[in-house]
This record gives sequence, structure tokens and C-alpha cells, in this order.
Amino acid sequence: MKGLEIIKRNAVQIISEEELNKKMENGKKLKIKLGADPSRPDLHLGHTVVLRALKEFQKMGHEVIFVIGDYTGMIGDPSGKNKTRPALTFEETRKSGETYFKQVTKILDKEKTRIAYNSEWLSKLNLKEVIELTSKYTVARILEREDFKNRYENNLPLSIHELLYPLMQGYDSVALKADIEIGGTDQTFNLLVGRELQKEFSQEPQIVITFPLLVGLDGKNKMSKSLDNYIGIDEKPEIMYEKAMKIPDECLLQYYQLTTDMDLEKVKTLIEEDILLAHRKYAREIIKIYHGEEYVKDAENRYDTVAKGGIPEDIKEIFLKEKEINICDLLVKVEFATSKSEAKRLIMGNGVKLDNKTVENIHFIVNIEEEKILRVGKSKFVKVKNE
Amino acid sequence: MKGLEIIKRNAVQIISEEELNKKMENGKKLKIKLGADPSRPDLHLGHTVVLRALKEFQKMGHEVIFVIGDYTGMIGDPSGKNKTRPALTFEETRKSGETYFKQVTKILDKEKTRIAYNSEWLSKLNLKEVIELTSKYTVARILEREDFKNRYENNLPLSIHELLYPLMQGYDSVALKADIEIGGTDQTFNLLVGRELQKEFSQEPQIVITFPLLVGLDGKNKMSKSLDNYIGIDEKPEIMYEKAMKIPDECLLQYYQLTTDMDLEKVKTLIEEDILLAHRKYAREIIKIYHGEEYVKDAENRYDTVAKGGIPEDIKEIFLKEKEINICDLLVKVEFATSKSEAKRLIMGNGVKLDNKTVENIHFIVNIEEEKILRVGKSKFVKVKNE
Repeated sequence: MKGLEIIKRNAVQIISEEELNKKMENGKKLKIKLGADPSRPDLHLGHTVVLRALKEFQKMGHEVIFVIGDYTGMIGDPSGKNKTRPALTFEETRKSGETYFKQVTKILDKEKTRIAYNSEWLSKLNLKEVIELTSKYTVARILEREDFKNRYENNLPLSIHELLYPLMQGYDSVALKADIEIGGTDQTFNLLVGRELQKEFSQEPQIVITFPLLVGLDGKNKMSKSLDNYIGIDEKPEIMYEKAMKIPDECLLQYYQLTTDMDLEKVKTLIEEDILLAHRKYAREIIKIYHGEEYVKDAENRYDTVAKGGIPEDIKEIFLKEKEINICDLLVKVEFATSKSEAKRLIMGNGVKLDNKTVENIHFIVNIEEEKILRVGKSKFVKVKNE
Repeated sequence: MKGLEIIKRNAVQIISEEELNKKMENGKKLKIKLGADPSRPDLHLGHTVVLRALKEFQKMGHEVIFVIGDYTGMIGDPSGKNKTRPALTFEETRKSGETYFKQVTKILDKEKTRIAYNSEWLSKLNLKEVIELTSKYTVARILEREDFKNRYENNLPLSIHELLYPLMQGYDSVALKADIEIGGTDQTFNLLVGRELQKEFSQEPQIVITFPLLVGLDGKNKMSKSLDNYIGIDEKPEIMYEKAMKIPDECLLQYYQLTTDMDLEKVKTLIEEDILLAHRKYAREIIKIYHGEEYVKDAENRYDTVAKGGIPEDIKEIFLKEKEINICDLLVKVEFATSKSEAKRLIMGNGVKLDNKTVENIHFIVNIEEEKILRVGKSKFVKVKNE
């Protein structure tokens, strides 16, 4: 299965399918737009849902354009309400664009992928043009956006400049003359603004295709790095394997559907007959996609050893100058914790073992004149030894 | 009575009076802003309410700035919804500014009156600055404006650009560093936006002073040229006299209050004792203000003659080439009607007389080989004659 079929299989909405078929048949090279945050991405399987659709479009010869929202990124949030949106410098936004390109071209075709910065056209707009742009949309329609509506109706602050953002994002489609814009279902409203604005600017309106948001390993929230419920596409094979085994059973089919090309009918049968094997097969598949088939066996062996309580063969060794070291300092030193307070939390959660014995005291002093095996969680191991 | 007293007597709101007193006491030359439409004005008594307040400020040494909204005037209404707001050219807005100056300096001191065009600063705003400006105001607060609220709540179209207008008007105060802005009560919301924005831009907020809207001769609507319920400050003494006599009795006190300096206690007594004389005195007063005392007597005599059904002595004579002419064409020719259809309406309303005989037929042919007196309404007369 490939091309439009995969795209249509996974899409939640295509507005409109008729127009899409028509554009595809006409044989022209199309511009497929995807909006991207100016913050630097760390791609995980959640991102791959739309990236895989984009790849299919590229295989059919079309061009993919990532629009980095650097213009608003450089402004930040002037109302000061959104603290996660500090102003970025020109250099920072360019750097995030480069990182974006590097990351997405792990999946996409370099030749058919372009990064565009919306400051290119937005910085040229003057007040007259802003007025013309905003005259094309009514207050009532913009307040239909769920989050705006809720804030307005619940008397939470909603500044006028926030209404301008969807219009600017929509204007990106006008500036690029986008043929198709794709995104997660949470972007539907913004994508449709682009479509409406193109009509107002006498352009052929873009086709809007939305995809489901992949649920994270917690089975509840959308996959995201900040919730630590993700499988990164850059993670090591053994980590991928272990995480794949943790996907909630009821979510596994969605993972197969949205992140692999495998035949869903066969997958359904497998899940019903042998859920463990279904997890294993999924783990093997994503390692194959992001690392290569040759990495599957080792990752699987390691997983099995650890699962049986064993210690894998290929543990990293670290030599330290100290003869004695506090357990928390040690955890930070070997990079199993990013801070002493994280280290304390790990110990207090009974997640830290020394030579297979759980460490209970955060003040414990480890003697490493003799080699010790330090373990965090199920699968993080390291040998520590005095030099 | 003069100065602050007159201003305070007539003001509906002063926000705040304490701040006003403080600014006045500090002795600095203040900038008093008044927003003006870019369409060419034809001043009537309604306008004089604020102009008289401005004059008092000038007498106290302050500077009056008329801000001509040429920037939006040049854009027109891009949504195409407001047909009374077609785009104007640069030349047109400059011409209206000059006309404005000429008209208002009939009342105001030329030396202390300035015209400013808001394109001077608004045309320089880019999208970034527009976003910063709009971040300073919430949607909820702007939708408190009565007309916005009504349209939004009744599902009538309200485009986003319309929300920008009050902010732009408010930004005018920021750009000018206005100390005081005055306007009619219908402008209260917009004036307060200016005050709020100045605070956001770390300026001392302008004092807002609003004045009542003078009711028109119909006793119902605000005085306006388009409703033909006005007394123009350029009108001839005899027309002023006649119109003044038509002011509804119950409105006369307001006319005295808002458009003259006369003692209101005495006026109240006069109105109670002799309403006709109260009208006459008002008529005399406005002729005195806008033409001079020497014009009062003639205007009064003419009014009295006409009131008794007589024909005034000083009728204009017009000589035509034709010997015969259709009554409607004649009305247009002598400028008693601006079109044939207006002429028809005048005839059908029994408002047209020829030698004191009402004309009933719109196809009537007037023979002007002999001089005829044409009369429209009570007081428009002309002698027409073949050359």
C-alpha cells in the first residue's frame, strides 16, 4: 500500500477529497505546506504521522515546504502572558530551521524539502495591508476556535493580537500559494483559515488534510517530549525496543496504523491472538525503520535478558577518580540523572540498584574500589570502577 | 462666565476632574486633541459644542490639534461593507484638512490651531508594531463598545479590522502625547482607549472630556446635515433666524446652554414667561455670534414679513433665456431642488407656490414672459423672468 492510499487511510479529514483527487490528477508539482514552531524539534513517533504522509507526497513528485514561524517567534508574546514564548533572535530561529531540516530529512527526501521563514513576507506587511487582511475575517468566525471561545466566554484574558496569529498563519498559505496544508487535528481551525484567506485573495484554496494525534506511552495524552511519554526517532534500538513493549495494549493498533505501513487486518488478528508478539513485531518494525534490520536482534536479546532480571553483556564501563562517592553524585556523574534532586527522586522511587540491591538511602556512600553495577529502572546499566 | 467654568458646565464626563485641575494648575501649554473625519465638514451648531470648549482652552493658552483620520480614509473600508466609506486620495484628504482648518478657525484662534494627519505615524507601523499595539487590549474590552457588542451578539458581521480602528484612534493620542481629548458622548469609548493606550506606552494618560450631542431641529436625532435638521454656522442670517424659531420649545434651553454663553438662570425664567421671545433672543444671539449684531434687525424684519404671509423686499432676481419652462426644471435651475425628483417631491408635498398659488401638477409649464415669484416652503423666494 502506498501514496494516496496511506494518506487517506490515516487522515481524519480531507477538505475536500474531491478537490484533492482533481489536483493529483492534473499532474502538476504541488506545494505541500506544514507549519513548524520556531523552537528546535526533537522528533518522536508523534511527529512521524504527518511526516510519513509528506513522504508519500514527495514520492509522487511534490514539494514539501516547512514554514518556520520565525516572525512571531522573534516578537515573542508582547502581552507577556505566555512565558513559554520568549522572543528569539534571528540567529536562533535560523538555527532551529536548520535543525528542523536535518531532523525531518531523516524521513523526507532532501531534494524535495524546503524550509521557508515567514518573516520573509510578514515583515513586509504594513498597517494598510494588515487592515486589508483582517477585513477578510469576522470576529465571530475567529472566536469559533475552541480555545479562543473558552477564554472569551469564561472571561479569561484574550488579547486582540492573539486573533491575528491564525490570520498570519493563514496568510503564509497565501504568500506561498500552497496547494495542500497538512497538520494534526488540533490544527484544523488554523488550516481552514489559510484555505479561506486564499479564496479571499483569489487563489485556488488549499486542500486541508488533518491527521490524528498519536497518543503517548501513558495512553492518555498526546505524545510529547515534555510529558516523557514519547519514543524518539533518534533513540537507541534497545530503548526503542523497551519503550515499544510498554505501549498500552489498547493503543498498539493505532501505533501500527499511524507509524508503519503494515497491513492492518493482519495486525488486528495478531493483536487478538498474541499481544506480546504483536508488541515484539512493532518494536522490530520501528527499529528496522529508524536504524535498520541488523539492529533488531541485539535489541531483542538485551530486552529479554533484562526482562528475566539478568544483566546484559554489553554494559558501558566508567572509571572514576574517586574511591568513594555519594550515590546521588554518582547518578549525576554517569548521566542517569540530570540533577541531584532528580537522583533523589529516583532513589526514593526505589528505581536505583547497586549490584542488584535496591538503594534506599540518599546519603549512601558507594565504595568503588571494587567494580559495581549501577542500574536505574529496568534497562539502564553502567559499570563503575575506581581508575 | 468663562474658561474651565464653561467647559465644566457643559461636560457630561471628565475623566478625571482631579487630573484636569492638576494639569491646568501646572501652567504648561497643553495639547488638546479632537479627532476629525476625513470627509469635508460643513460646520453646524452641533459641532460648535466642542469647538466652544476648545476655544476656552485656547484662551487659556493651550494648543488645539485636529487629527484628520486620513490613514483609514485612504484605505476606505476594505471589507466593502461600509459604502459610505470609499477610499479617498491623498489630495482629497489634504483638501478636507484645509477645509477643516478654514471652517474651525471661524470659531478658533488660527495661531493656536493645528491640523495633523494620522498617516504621519500610522503609515510607519509594521506588523510587529501592530501586534505590540493590539497586545495591549483584550477582545472582551473592545467588545464592550456598544455597537460592536450589538453586532457580535446579534450575529451581524463584524470584521476583525474594525476592532483595530479604535486602537489606531487611541494610538493617535500616543503619537501626539495628547494631554486632553474631547469629543461627543458617542466617542467616550474611543477616547478612553486612547487614555488606556497612553498608560500602556508609559505616558501620562490623557484627560477625557465628553460633551452632549446637540439635538437637531426635529427634536429627536442628533443634529446632522444628512438628516436636514441642522443650523449651519455659514447660513444666512435670515435662514438662521427662521430655523432658530423652529427649535422645539423643550430643546431651547439645551441650545442656549451648549451654544451660547448666556446665563442659564435668566434663560429659564424667560422660557417660562415668554417662549416666543426666548426663541427670538436665541435667534438674535446666534446671528450676533456668527455674523454680527448689525445683521439681526434685517433678519428679524424679514422673518416677520414672511410669517405674516408677506413677501420680503430683497428677493433675488433670476433671468432665463426660456419663455416657458417646466416647473421641475425651473426648481432645479434656481437651485431650490438638487434634482428633478426632489423637485417633484416638493410639489407633491404642496411646498411650491407661484405668485402665491400652490402648484399641484408636476408637468406644469410656467410662462415667464411676465415676471413670476417662485416660493418654496416658508422662506425661499426668487423672482424669475425672461431675459
